[in-house]
Amino acid sequence: MHADSPCPVARSADLLGDRWALLVIRDAFDGITRFGDFQRSLGAARNILSDRLRRLVEAGLLVQQPAADGSAYQDYVLTAAGRDLFPLLVALRQWGERHRFAAGQAHSTLVERSTGSALAYMQPQDSAGHAIGAEQTVVRKL
Amino acid sequence: MHADSPCPVARSADLLGDRWALLVIRDAFDGITRFGDFQRSLGAARNILSDRLRRLVEAGLLVQQPAADGSAYQDYVLTAAGRDLFPLLVALRQWGERHRFAAGQAHSTLVERSTGSALAYMQPQDSAGHAIGAEQTVVRKL
Repeated sequence: MHADSPCPVARSADLLGDRWALLVIRDAFDGITRFGDFQRSLGAARNILSDRLRRLVEAGLLVQQPAADGSAYQDYVLTAAGRDLFPLLVALRQWGERHRFAAGQAHSTLVERSTGSALAYMQPQDSAGHAIGAEQTVVRKL
Repeated sequence: MHADSPCPVARSADLLGDRWALLVIRDAFDGITRFGDFQRSLGAARNILSDRLRRLVEAGLLVQQPAADGSAYQDYVLTAAGRDLFPLLVALRQWGERHRFAAGQAHSTLVERSTGSALAYMQPQDSAGHAIGAEQTVVRKL
């Protein structure tokens, strides 16, 4: 729909502005690879899940490969472009933690594997590496 | 749909996993406040745009307030929770720049207002402030 837009947000939103696509990506980061496991995790109808997996493969975010265990299954695995969605997933998670849970309400937490510490709050940074707010920025249009 | 999920990504995706909602938020960061201006920018049908604006107001991301110019119009303005979506917008933008444009293809750019410099590439950071990749993290579920 916005495939020709000069705005990178519009092109990303075209593909990723879909709750099922985002949750498939989340599960892929969690190590889920099989159709049946995505289905159990998401509770999505087969046709919806098939459609989203197909779109994400066509867009180059997931790739199908023979199962790691040598079985006849196909695994869905994140490509390098898919793995580059890690900042987006962290942004969704950190915004949700702040604004979609009551104070003290328990939620899953993304932690550093080696220490168990929660990640820092991720903020946009200027070219010198200092945190920068939206009001200090402007979009330079074409 | 996932309003009760213990996963912050799922709760965020429920609201933000929608291309029109994301583009309304993008335009609000760009300073658009009027229904007609959103409509011209997005090319969305009136009923779709009305629905998305209403959902975003109900969710507390936008607020309606009397027009700044004293006219009878209502302005739609980002709340503090809405402004906290800046990292998400930057993540969408930077992923799009990397993966949805051909090499050398022109796109709009988010720059620091005072210097005109492009923002740094935003990366998740560990508790000590060092860049961290997905493979060094794990989700601690409830």
